[in-house]
Amino acid sequence: MSEEGLSYQTSGVAIGEANRAVRSFADAVRSTYNANVLSDVGAFGGLFSGHFPDFADPVLVSSIDGVGTKTKVAAMAGSFFGLGKDIVNHCVNDILVQGAKPLFFLDYFATAKLTAEMVREVVEGAAEACKENGCALLGGETAEMPGVYSDGECDVVGCIVGVVDKTKLLPTNVENGDLIVGIASNGLHTNGFSLARAALFSTAKRKIDEPFFESTIGETLLKPHRSYYSPLWPLLQEGGWIKAMAHLTGGGFIENIPRILGPDVRAVVEKHTWQVPPIFQLIQTDGNIADEEMYRVFNMGVGMVLITPSERAPQLVERLNSSGETAWVIGEITKGARGAVVV
Amino acid sequence: MSEEGLSYQTSGVAIGEANRAVRSFADAVRSTYNANVLSDVGAFGGLFSGHFPDFADPVLVSSIDGVGTKTKVAAMAGSFFGLGKDIVNHCVNDILVQGAKPLFFLDYFATAKLTAEMVREVVEGAAEACKENGCALLGGETAEMPGVYSDGECDVVGCIVGVVDKTKLLPTNVENGDLIVGIASNGLHTNGFSLARAALFSTAKRKIDEPFFESTIGETLLKPHRSYYSPLWPLLQEGGWIKAMAHLTGGGFIENIPRILGPDVRAVVEKHTWQVPPIFQLIQTDGNIADEEMYRVFNMGVGMVLITPSERAPQLVERLNSSGETAWVIGEITKGARGAVVV
Repeated sequence: MSEEGLSYQTSGVAIGEANRAVRSFADAVRSTYNANVLSDVGAFGGLFSGHFPDFADPVLVSSIDGVGTKTKVAAMAGSFFGLGKDIVNHCVNDILVQGAKPLFFLDYFATAKLTAEMVREVVEGAAEACKENGCALLGGETAEMPGVYSDGECDVVGCIVGVVDKTKLLPTNVENGDLIVGIASNGLHTNGFSLARAALFSTAKRKIDEPFFESTIGETLLKPHRSYYSPLWPLLQEGGWIKAMAHLTGGGFIENIPRILGPDVRAVVEKHTWQVPPIFQLIQTDGNIADEEMYRVFNMGVGMVLITPSERAPQLVERLNSSGETAWVIGEITKGARGAVVV
Repeated sequence: MSEEGLSYQTSGVAIGEANRAVRSFADAVRSTYNANVLSDVGAFGGLFSGHFPDFADPVLVSSIDGVGTKTKVAAMAGSFFGLGKDIVNHCVNDILVQGAKPLFFLDYFATAKLTAEMVREVVEGAAEACKENGCALLGGETAEMPGVYSDGECDVVGCIVGVVDKTKLLPTNVENGDLIVGIASNGLHTNGFSLARAALFSTAKRKIDEPFFESTIGETLLKPHRSYYSPLWPLLQEGGWIKAMAHLTGGGFIENIPRILGPDVRAVVEKHTWQVPPIFQLIQTDGNIADEEMYRVFNMGVGMVLITPSERAPQLVERLNSSGETAWVIGEITKGARGAVVV
């Protein structure tokens, strides 16, 4: 036992470092505020107006999620900014599939040994994505947990609250003959990183900074999850274009699409309709991964799936493409037991 | 490279185990639902009515937090149920200090190697606490992150949304002469566990199952964080009793109480007014921890602090005590630069 007594600092928790982090990102957080935000940085809880004048019958939609072991790739690359964008955009998409507009978001960042720089990167990334989605970064928490997290590792968690008019809640009734439209992802988003790391780094012994097309393996893997709020919100407001949506996260095509189907319709996704991006091909080859497993774990280049009446599909694709997205018909809804197949 | 290809399962993520966990706790989650919950377990995002008829000018109050390294003590004891209650009650208290009634809660549980039993314990604990607070357990996420978390360790995070009428938002104006009332905690709640573990286990080499009064060290440390919603909500609705509240979490008396004070008043807490519970004395002795550090890190037996007009204090204390709480005047507000001292 040392002569000097213990303190919070000597037990491994640096309160001062956390406080320094808060000061460093306060302006970025405030830049996401709008007239509905009624509190400032550092309040016990964030305050947000409970009036929704643009919604006749408002329903709040809320979701919590993490970025998974994408954090390990970020730690390998020493780059955390993207994780903040990842978690916001992931959450935005998760409630967008029910038709919701994001209102506010809260982030949680935990690691074994906190530095103000890591925290600032994550929170500034989250703030940037919040601004892009018109969403307030209403609160957050950082935690230093020596011994819980492995050295150098971290977790990033986010919780979002959005609003939808009850009459515009999705999914609606998906029918035989409807078409399936995919919108391009920009990479793995936040899914399948344990399998991707096993294939690329453990099995094939690749390096994080190995060149890959115009970039590196690390940069390709770390591209922030895209948000589909901006291109889809106007279409949702017009109505008639989108009967249901699935965000392709953990579970890929095989497990996510059936969640928006009734018991007697089936999604048939035709993989020849698009070119799978090279990073997924590399993972599959390195890991000798079965085709079905790939479509069950990864988005394979399709970040969001929309179900549309067949007569609307051509114009929907055209409108999405003219708004800067890459969209195309990837399959159709048929009669059959609920499920999704990739053929 | 093995002959057999990689899969999500072989890369360390057991999707089946997570699905088994969800089935096991679905009924507990549904038992927290009320008429405002418009979704079922397993939806993309949880749905909650956006109408607040009991609030003339509703303000949503939201907070996110974790239970810190209390998770390490839970892992040592192999007991996770309490962590679910901890995170709910911690969050409920965090927004209660602004006058808010909890509406809904979402939980996140992550670990290196997930078992359905661990998840079920945490979620059932959270569900029980949600029911006790009249709060819906609207959503949640479990994550299996091998390599991010140390073996056997986990993190538990929660996000809460509540509502308050704008005219009843706290804190209000705290003045010279107001009295400070404390309500008893039942132990460490969720704070100071890194320091407590360093003192008890690393320095003094105590065992988790060492007898301590009628219980053990482990059970004493793991007592779930108390919620103060039930005793305080009626007083908040009546008005006039409580001018401000501080939830004694990380930062203890020294950092939390000043957050509810204006620039020219000071909290003077008199430690002779109560008997500090034995567990705090043991930690202090084992770790040879300075007195001021103890009151900066731990709640020292006081879970919630209320500021009340001096003439209301005797009746406030009496009402709290008759509702089953242990409450007493612990100090007063004086003129001076914003701060808190324990004398």
